[in-house]
Parts: sequence; C-alpha cells; structure tokens
Amino acid sequence: MNTNAPLAIVAGAGPRLGRALVQRFQKGGYHSVGLSRTGQNDGSGDTNLIQCDLTDPEAVATVAKRLMASCGAPKVVVHNPAKLVISPFEKTSAEDFETTWRSMVLSAVLVANQFLPAMAAGDGGSFLVSGATASLRGAKNFSAFASAKAGLRGLTQSLARKYSTGGIHVAQVILDGILDTSASRSLHDLDPARMMDTNDVAEAYWQLAYQPQSTWTHELDLRPMGETF
Amino acid sequence: MNTNAPLAIVAGAGPRLGRALVQRFQKGGYHSVGLSRTGQNDGSGDTNLIQCDLTDPEAVATVAKRLMASCGAPKVVVHNPAKLVISPFEKTSAEDFETTWRSMVLSAVLVANQFLPAMAAGDGGSFLVSGATASLRGAKNFSAFASAKAGLRGLTQSLARKYSTGGIHVAQVILDGILDTSASRSLHDLDPARMMDTNDVAEAYWQLAYQPQSTWTHELDLRPMGETF
Amino acid sequence: MNTNAPLAIVAGAGPRLGRALVQRFQKGGYHSVGLSRTGQNDGSGDTNLIQCDLTDPEAVATVAKRLMASCGAPKVVVHNPAKLVISPFEKTSAEDFETTWRSMVLSAVLVANQFLPAMAAGDGGSFLVSGATASLRGAKNFSAFASAKAGLRGLTQSLARKYSTGGIHVAQVILDGILDTSASRSLHDLDPARMMDTNDVAEAYWQLAYQPQSTWTHELDLRPMGETF
Amino acid sequence: MNTNAPLAIVAGAGPRLGRALVQRFQKGGYHSVGLSRTGQNDGSGDTNLIQCDLTDPEAVATVAKRLMASCGAPKVVVHNPAKLVISPFEKTSAEDFETTWRSMVLSAVLVANQFLPAMAAGDGGSFLVSGATASLRGAKNFSAFASAKAGLRGLTQSLARKYSTGGIHVAQVILDGILDTSASRSLHDLDPARMMDTNDVAEAYWQLAYQPQSTWTHELDLRPMGETF
Repeated sequence: MNTNAPLAIVAGAGPRLGRALVQRFQKGGYHSVGLSRTGQNDGSGDTNLIQCDLTDPEAVATVAKRLMASCGAPKVVVHNPAKLVISPFEKTSAEDFETTWRSMVLSAVLVANQFLPAMAAGDGGSFLVSGATASLRGAKNFSAFASAKAGLRGLTQSLARKYSTGGIHVAQVILDGILDTSASRSLHDLDPARMMDTNDVAEAYWQLAYQPQSTWTHELDLRPMGETF
Repeated sequence: MNTNAPLAIVAGAGPRLGRALVQRFQKGGYHSVGLSRTGQNDGSGDTNLIQCDLTDPEAVATVAKRLMASCGAPKVVVHNPAKLVISPFEKTSAEDFETTWRSMVLSAVLVANQFLPAMAAGDGGSFLVSGATASLRGAKNFSAFASAKAGLRGLTQSLARKYSTGGIHVAQVILDGILDTSASRSLHDLDPARMMDTNDVAEAYWQLAYQPQSTWTHELDLRPMGETF
Repeated sequence: MNTNAPLAIVAGAGPRLGRALVQRFQKGGYHSVGLSRTGQNDGSGDTNLIQCDLTDPEAVATVAKRLMASCGAPKVVVHNPAKLVISPFEKTSAEDFETTWRSMVLSAVLVANQFLPAMAAGDGGSFLVSGATASLRGAKNFSAFASAKAGLRGLTQSLARKYSTGGIHVAQVILDGILDTSASRSLHDLDPARMMDTNDVAEAYWQLAYQPQSTWTHELDLRPMGETF
Repeated sequence: MNTNAPLAIVAGAGPRLGRALVQRFQKGGYHSVGLSRTGQNDGSGDTNLIQCDLTDPEAVATVAKRLMASCGAPKVVVHNPAKLVISPFEKTSAEDFETTWRSMVLSAVLVANQFLPAMAAGDGGSFLVSGATASLRGAKNFSAFASAKAGLRGLTQSLARKYSTGGIHVAQVILDGILDTSASRSLHDLDPARMMDTNDVAEAYWQLAYQPQSTWTHELDLRPMGETF
C-alpha cells in the first residue's frame, strides 16, 4: 500500500458504477478503496475492496479509523450505495422505506461523520454523492426510492453549505438515465447507446473532484444523449 | 360523535398548527380528529384529540381501524408532525437523523398506508402534507431536518402521482416562514406581523382540500409578507 | 360605474380565461375591467372590456391614467395575455420570438410600470400573473413560448421581491394543463374532465387575491386531476 | 487560418470570460473565433475576433455564412453576451428590458438559427450558453436581467430537447458568483479568492464540450468556494 498516495474511498462499491469509480481514482494515482457489503470482487478481481456494512455505525467507524491511521484523511470520498425499489405504494412496506433510508441516507450520515471532520481539519477535499432522477422527482412507483434519494439530496445540500468554507467540495451527481451494465441490458429493452457508460460516469466524478476552488459545481446532472428530460 | 359528518384527521396535532387545523375542519362541519403523541389538550381543551404514536405501525393501524369503523374512510387527512432539529452536522447524531426521519417520513408512510387505499376505494378526498423551507433546500445547520423534509417531499410527490387518478388530491404545503406561536415569539426576535398566523395557514389547507378536480395545486408555498425568499 | 367599488384590471382578456377572470372579480363586487386587443365581446356581451394594445407603452399609459383617474389605484391586477406558438425551432422566426416576448413580457413590464407604483403608494393589493408549464420547462417545440413564459416568470419573481414590503402580493399561477374551451375541445382529443374549467381557474386567482398577508403564495401550480406532471 | 482545425465560435467575446473562452478552444487546437460588438482586442491583442452585432439578423447571417464557407459547420458554439442591468424596477425602462432581451435572448435565437441546423446536418457538436444566478431566480433589483436570463434558459432547454437526438449537446452554465476581472475587483469589495477565475470557468466549458454522449450535463452550476447559495 502506497501510503503517500492520497486516499480515495468509494462507499458503496457494487459491481457497476462503484467498481468503475474505485478504478478511476486508482488510475489517477490514488490509494483507492471500495467499501462494499460483501467485500468480494465478483470475478473481475482487481479492485481494492473492504467489507463494510455502511448502515452499521461501528463498522463504518472501525474501517474509517483503520484507513485514516495508515493513510491520513481521505482526499476524495464518494457515497454511492444504490438500493432501488420499484413497486406500487400499497405494496411497499414500512420496512422497504426503512431499508432504503438506511441504505442511502443513514449510510451517508455515518460516512460523512467519519470523514468530513478529518478532511476539514486537514487539507479539505471532495465528498461526492450519487443521486438519481428520483432525487428531484417522486415518480409513481418509486415512493421508497424517491423518498430516500430526495432525503439524501437535502442532506448533501446541507453538508455542502456547512463544509464549503472548510475547503471541502460536497457535490451530488444526478444520474438521470440507465447505467449500461449486464444487469440493465437484460432488464431494459434499450439500445446500449442510450445508456450511460460507467467509465464515462466515473470520469465525470473525477472531473468534479478536480474542479478548482474558484468553480465548484454542486449538482451535476448526467444523462445519455437522447434521454427524455 | 356525528358519524354522518365527513371525517378529517390531522396526524400530528401539536399545540400550534395542528390544533388550528383540527379546529378549521371542525368549524367546516367535519368530524375532525387530531392524532398526537400525548393526546392531551394543554389548557385550550376543545380539540378532539386521540393519543397515537405515529411512528408505531400498530398504533397507527389500531386508531385508523377504529376511526374508519365508525366514520368510514376519511375525506381529509393532514400529515403535520414537526420535529425541528437545528444543529451543526458534527453535533447531529445518527439517532437525530433517525428520529426526524421516523417522526416525519415513516409516520407519513404509515398514515398513508392506512388511509389512502380506503379513500381510493371510496370517494377519494384530500391528503395534505406539511412541508417547510427545508423541503426544498438543505441549509447549513438543518441537515437532519432538511433530509427528512426533503424525503417527505419525494414521498408526497410519488403519492400524488399514484393516487391522482383515484380521485385523491395529494398536496404539500411549503411553510416558508415562522409560525406565530407563543414559542416562536419568545424564540425569535421578530415582529409577529412577519410571522404566519396559524389560523390563516389552516385556512389555506381548507382551501386546498376544497379545490375542484379541474384545478388542483400540488405544492403550495406560503410565506408572510416581507419574508425573504 | 361604481367608483366606490375597488378596481380590478385583467390585462389580456381574451375569450377564455380572461373573461372568466373579469367576471369573477365583478361578481365579487369589483369594478372589473378587461383590457383586450379588440375590446369586443364576441357574443357573450356582458364583460366590461376596453380596447388596449398591451404592447404599446402609450396605449397602456393612456388607459391606466383614465382608469385610475376615476377609480384610484387598482386593488387587483391580473396579467393574462397568452400568445401560444408551437413549432419546431428551425421554423420559428426571430419575429415569432419577438412577438411572443412583446405579447407576454413587455406587456407585463408596461402594465406593472403603470399600476405597481400607484398601488404601493396606496393601499397595496395583488398583482397576479398567468404562467404555464412552459414557465418552468422549455419543451421541444415550444422555444418561443417557453422563452417568453420563463422570462415572464423571472420578471414576476423580481417584482414579488421588490413590492412585497410595499404590501403588494405579486404571484404567478402555473397553469399546467389544457383550459376547457371550445377551441381546445376541437383541438385536443381529450376528455373535458381532464381539462381545467376556466371558472375554477378564476376562483383560484380570486383566492390568491384574498390571501391574508400572513400567508402569501408566490407560485401556484394548477392542474386537472390525472394530468401527468 | 487552419481550415482543418475544427471551428469554435464564441458569440459574445467581451474582455472577460469571452476572451478566456476563445483562448481555451484555441489552445485545444480549434480554429477559435470570437464575435464581439467592437471586434477590437483591447490591448491583449492575441484573440481572434470578428466584429458582429449579435442582435442584427443580417450581420449574424453574414458572419456565419463566411465562417462556415471556409471552415464548415462549427464543432462548438458558445453564447456568452452579458448585459447586466441592476436597478429598481421603477427606474428600469421598457427600453432596458428590450435591450437586455435583444442582447441575450434574440442573439441566442439568431446564433442558434445560423449554426444548429448545419451542425445537426453534419457531425453534431456542442452549443453552450452562459447563464447566471438570475437564470434561476429573479432577485429584487434584477428585473430586466433576470427576465432575459430566465428567458434564455427556457430557450436553451427547448433547444437541448430539440437537438439532442441530432447529436448536439446544448447545455447552459449557471455562473453563480462574481467573475474575477479588473472591473469586478474595483466594483466589489470582495476577496478575489471568492471570485471565479475566468480561465477556470473556460476550462469548465471545455469539459462540457468534451463530455461523451453517454454522459451529458444540461445545466452546470459553477460557484466559487464559500459562495452563499
């Protein structure tokens, strides 16, 4: 482990966008670590993953302390857990709401709690959050997902205002389209050219993390060409 | 109890706006019931209150079944619990986030679950939700409150789209100002003429509940004259 | 003419919503006057109309001075000219853009210029502006219309902030649906139950004009039940 | 003139952001041309400028035809005229409104008319529009500016939806802060570290122009660290 390399943490490093993000920062010279529920690379094998239940305060604290003990405060943190629930409201249980909230909002609180004060006390950095169309709009069968993503957006805005003066760029990315993954190719009857390439998306996060302090973006919408909006 | 009168339920009937809402619908000929944590009128004594922990699925189900057994499906439901937390993020605990979420989002899920299907199966009606400035904007020291209110907004939008075709008008009110209450008079150094009169606010909910189906408002901003926005 | 009655002016009193607005304020006891390009009642005959080209500074000034000389400053002004252009951008000429801008933005400037200072110097009142879906969103074949309506929205917001402390309630109504008129019945293959009744819309303006100073709405969305949004 | 280099046009190439934009695309290998009212480099001398009144249909057509005759359809067009008016509404004349509208909206119509069809018929490209805080919000003394910038935003959204399927990325940049120029340094009592560096801003436009088709941003907010929002 190169402890001189700046630390990048991707909280929520599932086999889609998460891995692409870990790899993008790795390629850019970071000590880049993904936190995921399983901690397992599924076949691809080359990403640096740590098992961590992001909804468990102690688990997040333990991993955070360990990483910061060896690498110092992170330069970049990405919050990227996705817990998509699509179902009519009457079939969406209170548990579904709680699970999506824990997965996407509580986890952001816990991750922010661990890293933002250390980043603010140090050299600042970037805290980037993955949003979705549902961050802005509660569609019909997305009650639980939209509620959680909108709640995450409110939190992110508050963090952006709080930590901006401490040199931390808190921003969210509104992913307004379908990510091109094997899962979505089999799920959606959609030309892959109309989907978002996960490497392209990761590049946009990279650019966000490198925006100079004179020109910060706080909410970045991304959608593939031709996507209705 | 006049069981011929239509039923209005105010979930979250605290000693401010909640009571004014119960009374407004009472005045309008409703069998108007407030659900509150204590179920106690504090001195004023004339509001019809039922004790109910709105974050407890069984408690909400029990009260809902009891009320609907005698009165049928409600014509109007207002969701109005307020759990204001103002604190810097680093002093806002994960429990604060969970409490505000349970208080304002989970409670809405539980109340909606109990009443919306019955209203949709019956004659429709109105489901009105109290929002705040924080529903739209996560300000610096409002991380928990903004996250919950934004999450409630996403949920409300989703419900509005889901139940609109079933004749249920789901709308939210963005209260963008300080309510004129004894509490806020002692807390804020603000001319009461710059605050919102709770009876005026209740009147706005009443008008929302009576909008004809040809002209529904889905998000109603209210602020006192002179309020910065 | 009852010069004791408060004055209501509907600038843009075409044969749809405009007439309904004039009549609603008339019914409410106002001396209610519509300004329209032709000044002609087409058959219906009972609305008080004055011919006025709202894009002509002198014409607007002349009518305004005449009305205010006999009735004093208006209590209510509604800005309601509609100039809908639907066409692909490459077939929308610069003249189309200019015409829609003059019709909907310049006219608002001229009307506001004439009446707002007098209202502010007097007892205040309401200045209500008709918006549309296009006020918020530039759809594909609505480049000229959306540009003008969005420009009108920016102007209206600025006026709201400017005159709020002077006791003038400046608000806009976002009409997000099809008005039920004979024209739209023949144009759209749409169940009239999915259209907006112009009298219902006029009632919403009336309520806006009567909001107490403690609870002002600045942007009122209206859409018929079942309208997609 | 290297006619093999792709053509970049900056319509509105004043001595601030405009020049930085021309230079950024020049540096990136473009044949980069600025259109400005004077066509004069003021001292700096190294930017390729053409005199053009962007509010004059014939002037725009003449310049466009000339440029496209030698270079083909542009790969990048930036619309960047700024006409800031700050004044109380009652001191803002109808002419001020018309001038700001011509300067910022009509010019965009004319420029879009000349280049977008050619770009759509060719290889596509990017059409980037400079917005401001006022694009989203009509502040008190910004009635004319906000009206024009909001109108430009509506137009830009409409163009984005129209030309997206033709391979043209139409996007706007919301400049939410003060540009660091000698003019603004003397005007504002503000630490330059709180201003936006025009080269940083130009870099953001460059990145927008290079977003892959799978991840297009349509509205990019930029503000300096610490800017209130």
